[in-house]
Amino acid sequence: MVPERLERAPAYNPCMSTVAPSLPPLTNDTFLRACLRLPTEHTPVWLMRQAGRYLPEYRATRDKAGSFMGLATNPEAACEVTLQPLERYALDAAILFSDILTVPDAMGLGLSFATGEGPRFAHPVRDEAAVAKLAVPDMDKLRYVFDAVSTIRRALSDAQGVGRVPLIGFSGSPWTLACYMVEGGGSDDYRLVKTMMYQRPDLMHRILAVNADSVALYLNTQIEAGAQAVMIFDSWGGVLADGAFQEFSLAYTRRVLAQLKKEHDGYRIPHIVFTKGGGLWLDEIADSGCDVVGLDWTVNLGQARARVGERVALQGNLDPNVLFAQPEQIRAEVIKTLDSFGIPGAHSGHVFNLGHGISQFTPPEHVTTLVDTVHEYSRRQRQG
Amino acid sequence: MVPERLERAPAYNPCMSTVAPSLPPLTNDTFLRACLRLPTEHTPVWLMRQAGRYLPEYRATRDKAGSFMGLATNPEAACEVTLQPLERYALDAAILFSDILTVPDAMGLGLSFATGEGPRFAHPVRDEAAVAKLAVPDMDKLRYVFDAVSTIRRALSDAQGVGRVPLIGFSGSPWTLACYMVEGGGSDDYRLVKTMMYQRPDLMHRILAVNADSVALYLNTQIEAGAQAVMIFDSWGGVLADGAFQEFSLAYTRRVLAQLKKEHDGYRIPHIVFTKGGGLWLDEIADSGCDVVGLDWTVNLGQARARVGERVALQGNLDPNVLFAQPEQIRAEVIKTLDSFGIPGAHSGHVFNLGHGISQFTPPEHVTTLVDTVHEYSRRQRQG
Repeated sequence: MVPERLERAPAYNPCMSTVAPSLPPLTNDTFLRACLRLPTEHTPVWLMRQAGRYLPEYRATRDKAGSFMGLATNPEAACEVTLQPLERYALDAAILFSDILTVPDAMGLGLSFATGEGPRFAHPVRDEAAVAKLAVPDMDKLRYVFDAVSTIRRALSDAQGVGRVPLIGFSGSPWTLACYMVEGGGSDDYRLVKTMMYQRPDLMHRILAVNADSVALYLNTQIEAGAQAVMIFDSWGGVLADGAFQEFSLAYTRRVLAQLKKEHDGYRIPHIVFTKGGGLWLDEIADSGCDVVGLDWTVNLGQARARVGERVALQGNLDPNVLFAQPEQIRAEVIKTLDSFGIPGAHSGHVFNLGHGISQFTPPEHVTTLVDTVHEYSRRQRQG
Repeated sequence: MVPERLERAPAYNPCMSTVAPSLPPLTNDTFLRACLRLPTEHTPVWLMRQAGRYLPEYRATRDKAGSFMGLATNPEAACEVTLQPLERYALDAAILFSDILTVPDAMGLGLSFATGEGPRFAHPVRDEAAVAKLAVPDMDKLRYVFDAVSTIRRALSDAQGVGRVPLIGFSGSPWTLACYMVEGGGSDDYRLVKTMMYQRPDLMHRILAVNADSVALYLNTQIEAGAQAVMIFDSWGGVLADGAFQEFSLAYTRRVLAQLKKEHDGYRIPHIVFTKGGGLWLDEIADSGCDVVGLDWTVNLGQARARVGERVALQGNLDPNVLFAQPEQIRAEVIKTLDSFGIPGAHSGHVFNLGHGISQFTPPEHVTTLVDTVHEYSRRQRQG
């Protein structure tokens, strides 16, 4: 891991720098500023899976497209659903509508989504021969993703090229992709992938190396297409044992980060790492070279802030199930989260989010309460 | 929570006591000694779900009994499967064969197990009327459990009444029982139970209070029937947000602990609390008044030991998926776990276990490698 760290430029630290980083022209750059721990007037907010099934307009567009993958592979349709939540809510960022499994699909594993079920791979990677065949995919196979990115960026821009809010690109982490590639879909015990990991660590390291280099290229190509921040979803890092997490997940997230563009067109590109269930490894994740660490709801945000200090910004971490409560209860829980992070002071460093994707059963009007409370209350916090 | 702590006698601390606690007559009392942090010649080991589907002899007995519940409600059959793993492996404790959901079943919720599926309740608790009807069940409805306990104790004893190894009794935690009671079965998002928790905390507190008092009575009756240690399985504590965990899970685990017998027939009864995914709350769980904290594999055992100091013993924490690797790899991972805890010194305080129940797909001969390695290597550790 050491060579990867040395290859990487030191993380941007606003306290030590005399020059503020360049930010792209945006009507609302609060999200990017918070990612880089620069002062903001309010705490920015966006929601994982904010373009999704809980919105009736999303379901209408998906039905027109025929399927989830029909939607994800059509740049115009992907752009349409990406913008839908921004019409309803005062969100501070857009996130590319796509799936975390596009990369292994481009490797030839044959991704499909059966109705009512999770993702499936027609050709899971379970033996030495299948591992040997893996290679960084031709990015042309993912053209639909990069086209969606540039289409969304155009749709977000006014006539002068000033964007409403920044656009976030993303990918699954090398380990999370490997889970799906070996299991062939979701799992509740990760038996197949962990059996390979404990029995044939050489094969697992080979899968993860290919995944890391693929993810780095994929995210860099998203950045070139217009993504203004990128996020690595390590959705299944938290199922690993201490020790195995560092060796099989974090080392390869670092390998991605070490290759990622930190700037594009002269503008800083923040990198976010979200490890679901990774609270115990916060210190190590904060040292991975990312700008922002995403947290799930099991983590105490105030303690996490004290722990990471000025190393990284934090993103999170409301339990999505709070959105099933009544508006006054949602408001109370949002305020509790903001109070737990504490008064932002000179550097904000907090991006409000859920601790996991929003549930498809969420009443859409409850999201209004969440977003508006974040903005109102965080403005008041800054006024003291 | 304060009154509950004050009601409770201070946790037994071998460093501060001048009199060693009384232990029952046993050929092998290593497990009880480790629970109470007394010196042992080796690190004791048992496995969650050690009597279970991975053993062909278990499957044969279950098929004779007709079903899982047929097995659990028949004291002779439950005794038979409880003893099966002790015949194969040099385990240091037996654990009652039963289910964590017997208590809500006795409350009248109608537990069943469909083949290939998890548990189901015919009458889930989802509204005010259903909550109002809940009460501590008549322990006579759980007679089959207490009969199993006394049957197993007899079967473990020689003619002089000396037991081979101690017998552990157990229950689900108040929160974990509530999850199943509200969801009506397993869940992947805990939407129904968390909706009630955030929307109607008054109803959730009422369920949890009834559950806590029921669990305390249930475990005390197991102790009277012969259980020599008891364990509270907070299998779903880890799905709660920080703050909610303390209020809705740990507070009620404490309420159970505050009511539990610390001695029976003059012998000390250790209390174990296992919160799956609870590593971030280790300090608070260690202060709950229990003797032993169970840990899953995400926790670094050495760091956990340093953190809890002399407050509690630790139990865990190998990933059950390690048992799918080859014997030499299993051996290496077991040694890594023992080394992570470190040299036991004057006080042992480590009970080796998995970090979750053993998988039904585990090759039985791999368990031999695990158990024997724990014994051999931990003996060597003590010799320095």
